Amino acid sequence: MKKTIQAIILLTFSISATANWFNDDKQKPTQQQEQKTYTLKLAETWPSNFPIFGDTPKKFKKLAETMSNGRLKIRIDSKNKHKAPFGIFDFVKSGQYDLGHSASYYWKGKDINTLFFTSMPFGMTTFEQHAWFEYGGGQELMDKVYAKYGLKSIIGGSSGNQMGGWFQKEINSIADLKGLKMRIPGFAGEIMAEVGAKPINISPGELYTALDRGTIDALEWIGPSLDLRMGFHKIAPYYYTGWHEPGSELQFLVNLKKYNSLPKDLQTILISAMKLSAYQMYDQSEHESAKNWATMKKDYPNIKIRTFPKPVFDALRAANDKLLKKLAASNPLSKEIIESQTNYLRKIRAWTAISDQAYLNSQSK
Amino acid sequence: MKKTIQAIILLTFSISATANWFNDDKQKPTQQQEQKTYTLKLAETWPSNFPIFGDTPKKFKKLAETMSNGRLKIRIDSKNKHKAPFGIFDFVKSGQYDLGHSASYYWKGKDINTLFFTSMPFGMTTFEQHAWFEYGGGQELMDKVYAKYGLKSIIGGSSGNQMGGWFQKEINSIADLKGLKMRIPGFAGEIMAEVGAKPINISPGELYTALDRGTIDALEWIGPSLDLRMGFHKIAPYYYTGWHEPGSELQFLVNLKKYNSLPKDLQTILISAMKLSAYQMYDQSEHESAKNWATMKKDYPNIKIRTFPKPVFDALRAANDKLLKKLAASNPLSKEIIESQTNYLRKIRAWTAISDQAYLNSQSK
Repeated sequence: MKKTIQAIILLTFSISATANWFNDDKQKPTQQQEQKTYTLKLAETWPSNFPIFGDTPKKFKKLAETMSNGRLKIRIDSKNKHKAPFGIFDFVKSGQYDLGHSASYYWKGKDINTLFFTSMPFGMTTFEQHAWFEYGGGQELMDKVYAKYGLKSIIGGSSGNQMGGWFQKEINSIADLKGLKMRIPGFAGEIMAEVGAKPINISPGELYTALDRGTIDALEWIGPSLDLRMGFHKIAPYYYTGWHEPGSELQFLVNLKKYNSLPKDLQTILISAMKLSAYQMYDQSEHESAKNWATMKKDYPNIKIRTFPKPVFDALRAANDKLLKKLAASNPLSKEIIESQTNYLRKIRAWTAISDQAYLNSQSK
Repeated sequence: MKKTIQAIILLTFSISATANWFNDDKQKPTQQQEQKTYTLKLAETWPSNFPIFGDTPKKFKKLAETMSNGRLKIRIDSKNKHKAPFGIFDFVKSGQYDLGHSASYYWKGKDINTLFFTSMPFGMTTFEQHAWFEYGGGQELMDKVYAKYGLKSIIGGSSGNQMGGWFQKEINSIADLKGLKMRIPGFAGEIMAEVGAKPINISPGELYTALDRGTIDALEWIGPSLDLRMGFHKIAPYYYTGWHEPGSELQFLVNLKKYNSLPKDLQTILISAMKLSAYQMYDQSEHESAKNWATMKKDYPNIKIRTFPKPVFDALRAANDKLLKKLAASNPLSKEIIESQTNYLRKIRAWTAISDQAYLNSQSK
């Protein structure tokens, strides 16, 4: 998912810190507000017509415009237009754009606590994490992180459980990871480095050739929903199951000053249209993954599905725990978020184990 | 979930068949419509303040009223008021109520094809079924079934994967099911009868006593989210994992004539508020199940989680397939829906197997 990070130089905007404009004033719109049209500009990380990810802001736009009877107008600029896919946070913070569609963990260089709201290695699946966001305190923690930048972050759609990636060789022990050149960015890349692998940054357009020529031994991308078009299944025989992004959630960003200037009905339309588009993106991801996986298997029946053996997971998990411990020690809010996620995961996974997991296992014997 | 069916005598309304009013006219609202207030009456199957299920229409009401700036007023009547929990279909069909909140499979006596839109034994999980509804043709099939009654049905929230029930004795073979007196209504009850069990109808208020005194040997209810308050864990040691309702989805019902009389913006607000409330009910169900399961385990650490052995599932599945085959042969639309669900399940389960299922299994070794 973090596919184009390394391809683009982050444009940095020099912006004075914005105040926290959030207020909970639930006044009815005045007659003037009721007739006023608000044009909101949205900047997305994705290129024009990027499937699934890019469909989500379009769905949001249509819902918001129809529900508001045209009082909200949403103008979407893709990266082709604004040229700064990783400038979304700054765009919306400064008010240059009112809204954004991106992924929270792209901003970890600005604020480490934005890291936790996309997907964490060994963390929650999408349906577990949605419960955390809505009922387990996740949204409140995300508000705490973003409010100080004058921003509100709302769930932006899940890609589902991301696959562990395409490998040229089987991974049978931790020794097989030593020196393995793999395209795997972000926090998962740090974990891989911790156990001796060599995370390498390669731009998306060059990934296929790099894997084909052995410049890299492995790479992770997303899953069948978006891997099919990349063609990796034609050149790498092993497709590993996921562990590093078990439920990657995108984000909508909202400039709070602009949000607070809207009448209450349009505020609710805005947030509801975002959330509904987000839930439906998860449906779309699952649908596209199912469809594309069937196509891949049909055309390339020899794709070998593998899962890392337990000792490999044990080492990766130990590295993960070590890095999280370091994070928690360095920042009280990080500690609070890590504890919330860890406790919630423990509780909800015990339920998943006797419900969906037990059911799926009983039917695949 | 089908908890109160047997407790209440279905009130039948004598209504002339309503025409199919559905039209796709996407006109902008006139100025008159823009100012008009529409009061919509909703009848729900649930008693007042029934948790989770009953919270969903309340959430819908709040969203619809706020987004419409009061132009939509929703009045909710619970079963305490209208006295006919299984009269919702007829209420909304006749226009006595504009909206309903219930479950599609309650209407199988009126139209067998309503059976398929809640949850089918050995069928899809909630996240699989949501993809089917939104992207796999599920909504279109549901429209086909309901349009001839002048109704529209929209997803109404999932209870998650329902547990297989509370048992006094362990089930080690199909012989243990012969003569087993179990409270298990609906299609799953028919499957159980097919393999020799004795499905028995007992009103919800008497279930605890019946299980305690041995009038029945087992019962299914919902899952930890709503089982905790029933207290079954205090008297039945075995809690079986689910197979008969792997993703039970409630439904909103809409009177199409009323729907078509609304301006386009309010139509979209109505449907969006329903869908968003539905997705969030699934989050709430997962959250409450996780929380209540932790409580049950803490207070009664000896609850024994069991899964039917493979030969038992094989027999139940054979019975299920036989009953479905009979249904498909008797009705062309049943055949179309069964084929759509069977094909979609095959495709999406292959994806679930290498994504969420593989991940969950790799982390619980």
